[in-house]
Amino acid sequence: MALIVQKFGGTSVGSTERIRHVAARCLAAQQAGDDVVVVVSAMSGETNRLLALVAAVSESPDSREQDMVVSTGEQVSVGLLALAVQRAGGKARSFTGQQVRILTDGVHGKARIREIDGRAIRESLSRGEIVVVAGFQGVDAHGNITTLGRGGSDTTAVALAAALQADACEIYTDVEGVYTTDPNLVPAARKLDRISYEEMLELASQGAKVLQIRSVEFAAKYRVKLWVKSSFTNSPGTLVCEEDASMEDVLVSGIAYDRNEAKITIRDVPDRPGMAAKIFGVLDEKQISVDLIVQNLSRQGTTDLTFTVAQSELRVAHEAIRQVAAAIGTGEVEFDEDVSKISIVGVGMRNHSGVAARMFAVLGAEGINVQMISTSEIKVSCVIRSEHTDRAVRALHTAFGLDRAPESGP
Amino acid sequence: MALIVQKFGGTSVGSTERIRHVAARCLAAQQAGDDVVVVVSAMSGETNRLLALVAAVSESPDSREQDMVVSTGEQVSVGLLALAVQRAGGKARSFTGQQVRILTDGVHGKARIREIDGRAIRESLSRGEIVVVAGFQGVDAHGNITTLGRGGSDTTAVALAAALQADACEIYTDVEGVYTTDPNLVPAARKLDRISYEEMLELASQGAKVLQIRSVEFAAKYRVKLWVKSSFTNSPGTLVCEEDASMEDVLVSGIAYDRNEAKITIRDVPDRPGMAAKIFGVLDEKQISVDLIVQNLSRQGTTDLTFTVAQSELRVAHEAIRQVAAAIGTGEVEFDEDVSKISIVGVGMRNHSGVAARMFAVLGAEGINVQMISTSEIKVSCVIRSEHTDRAVRALHTAFGLDRAPESGP
Repeated sequence: MALIVQKFGGTSVGSTERIRHVAARCLAAQQAGDDVVVVVSAMSGETNRLLALVAAVSESPDSREQDMVVSTGEQVSVGLLALAVQRAGGKARSFTGQQVRILTDGVHGKARIREIDGRAIRESLSRGEIVVVAGFQGVDAHGNITTLGRGGSDTTAVALAAALQADACEIYTDVEGVYTTDPNLVPAARKLDRISYEEMLELASQGAKVLQIRSVEFAAKYRVKLWVKSSFTNSPGTLVCEEDASMEDVLVSGIAYDRNEAKITIRDVPDRPGMAAKIFGVLDEKQISVDLIVQNLSRQGTTDLTFTVAQSELRVAHEAIRQVAAAIGTGEVEFDEDVSKISIVGVGMRNHSGVAARMFAVLGAEGINVQMISTSEIKVSCVIRSEHTDRAVRALHTAFGLDRAPESGP
Repeated sequence: MALIVQKFGGTSVGSTERIRHVAARCLAAQQAGDDVVVVVSAMSGETNRLLALVAAVSESPDSREQDMVVSTGEQVSVGLLALAVQRAGGKARSFTGQQVRILTDGVHGKARIREIDGRAIRESLSRGEIVVVAGFQGVDAHGNITTLGRGGSDTTAVALAAALQADACEIYTDVEGVYTTDPNLVPAARKLDRISYEEMLELASQGAKVLQIRSVEFAAKYRVKLWVKSSFTNSPGTLVCEEDASMEDVLVSGIAYDRNEAKITIRDVPDRPGMAAKIFGVLDEKQISVDLIVQNLSRQGTTDLTFTVAQSELRVAHEAIRQVAAAIGTGEVEFDEDVSKISIVGVGMRNHSGVAARMFAVLGAEGINVQMISTSEIKVSCVIRSEHTDRAVRALHTAFGLDRAPESGP
């Protein structure tokens, strides 16, 4: 008998009819002989409805109170799903993050899981119940309700799978699995049968919407077998797992893009030790994640520093940077919201040189100017003008041999 | 410096605009020098929306899971009200029933408060915060979320006032206070300045919608000074307090009616000891409250037993009674949904005979037949046909001198 953690997102529980469908799936898994823990998100649209209420009351809401309001979305879902399982003849019990005791730090809206107490869940499983856990939420050491940030339900599921030493964690989505790139953008995109944690991490962090990045980190750290599956079909999906030799045969596994980038440039930063620490320290204080950082060569004792942040954080980041720049005595601070980031990802790159060069050549042939470059062992990212995003992704997808073989005619 | 517990119902927090209005009221009380604890209900319509979701998933929902879903309504309200107070420049912190630790028994949907831990609230008050507590909900000894039943927010407020030894508990409603009877039915109804706990208890339990009965019991038990006030005006409202001599000058303080009664009659119950215990024991098991009970004189070794229950519980009660009646070997079980209960209430009755007789005379003069009668020291209740309800209340209101003096013309 295996222990399976399943996670269903907002679309999968978007109506009472769909909730009944999810209940049937969980019950089928249990009847096949497995212990089943289900993590659910808020019904689709619900989190936005709650955030709109918050926004109507306060334009800069306290994050503790916002979490208090927003966390109710998942609480409604778990109660309804438990009822649907019972209605279908099964046994089920719902849990809030507080009731499981998913202990997090106190960073409201972006809390990180510190510890999960598996006892209440194990007791419930031992009574033959399907355990239904609210995703996206936890409780801090003082009993305050916290949320993990958008997409946090994936993290809840993987963290639960790790804490319970589950045999698999299945993330149900509205797509068939992980694709070589966004199939909405590139119809020839192929579904991957398997992908390594590292590649998935790069794809997730580079803007693929399938899995939340922290859930993949968790899965990699605790070696959780992570499946991405469709909640509407029974196809096998994509397995995110440890890298094996065969994966290295593929140079590029996938292509990601992110239109939500914004670029900030600080001109003429004094070329002295500690400048970068001061600048990025300020952003860290405000909990703003910096993505790419590029520093040009020093020129007459100063240097230009460029980095990207999420567009949603540009306003706060820009203001903070303006202040620190003035304090340090740099040149002007410029920003540009009109940029995208394109990344190619693959463990096969490790043993092959020239992948980056080939990427630049493909973009160059399309007449697309590369503004920033960042590389890792298994990834090359370029920042380009937003308007070129679609064309860049399609060209790279073809150039790196990812297009699906066209189906043969009759 | 006084400690005030204020309670705002669903209509008072029915929109984000109204929530801002409530925030302003709480802040004004705090700025006047008081410590303020606010209890809020779910936004109007929200509990029904959640119950509709539950009903769409399951026609006979498990009450634990229903509480899980329904309790989110108040959680949203407390977060929004805390945000609104902060937005208006104040300090505030919201609490769920679990976070305060409002410990209840485990009877989901109708839980009773066992104990309230005041520490978290006192700490919050000592930081100068307005404390915003979710009404209607608590937590049982196993950490399950419970609800107190409809109108339970009043009980939460009074129980908090008792636990915190507050100087007053103010229940804000959409009416100006407690009236001699329903002003919608009798335009001449007068607002009462003061009313004793006992009278209020009789009025509340007899169908006046102003306060939930258990909140009045709590207030009486712990001598909480309870104000019923309008959330839309600044008029003084009605004080529910201990009886004093002046109250006895009034024979009848108020008239209540309840259209939600249903009557069950069991014919030919064997006139042996233990029969009534068996019958009402069955109803108690199903947690059905019995209101009036009348047993006729024994006739040839059997007796007719009539009692009333809430119309919503008639189906379950009737089925249970049919079974126990068959087991005991009684005559037929009849029921009638088409009845109302009319009650006159006043501490002044204690020292005056003939009040009941006068009530029957008034009803008789109106040609209204009295089906059942029940009396207490300070109350007389009659069950009549529903269609006569309005006429009965108006006639009694006039006969017992409760009509407001008509305003003098110019």
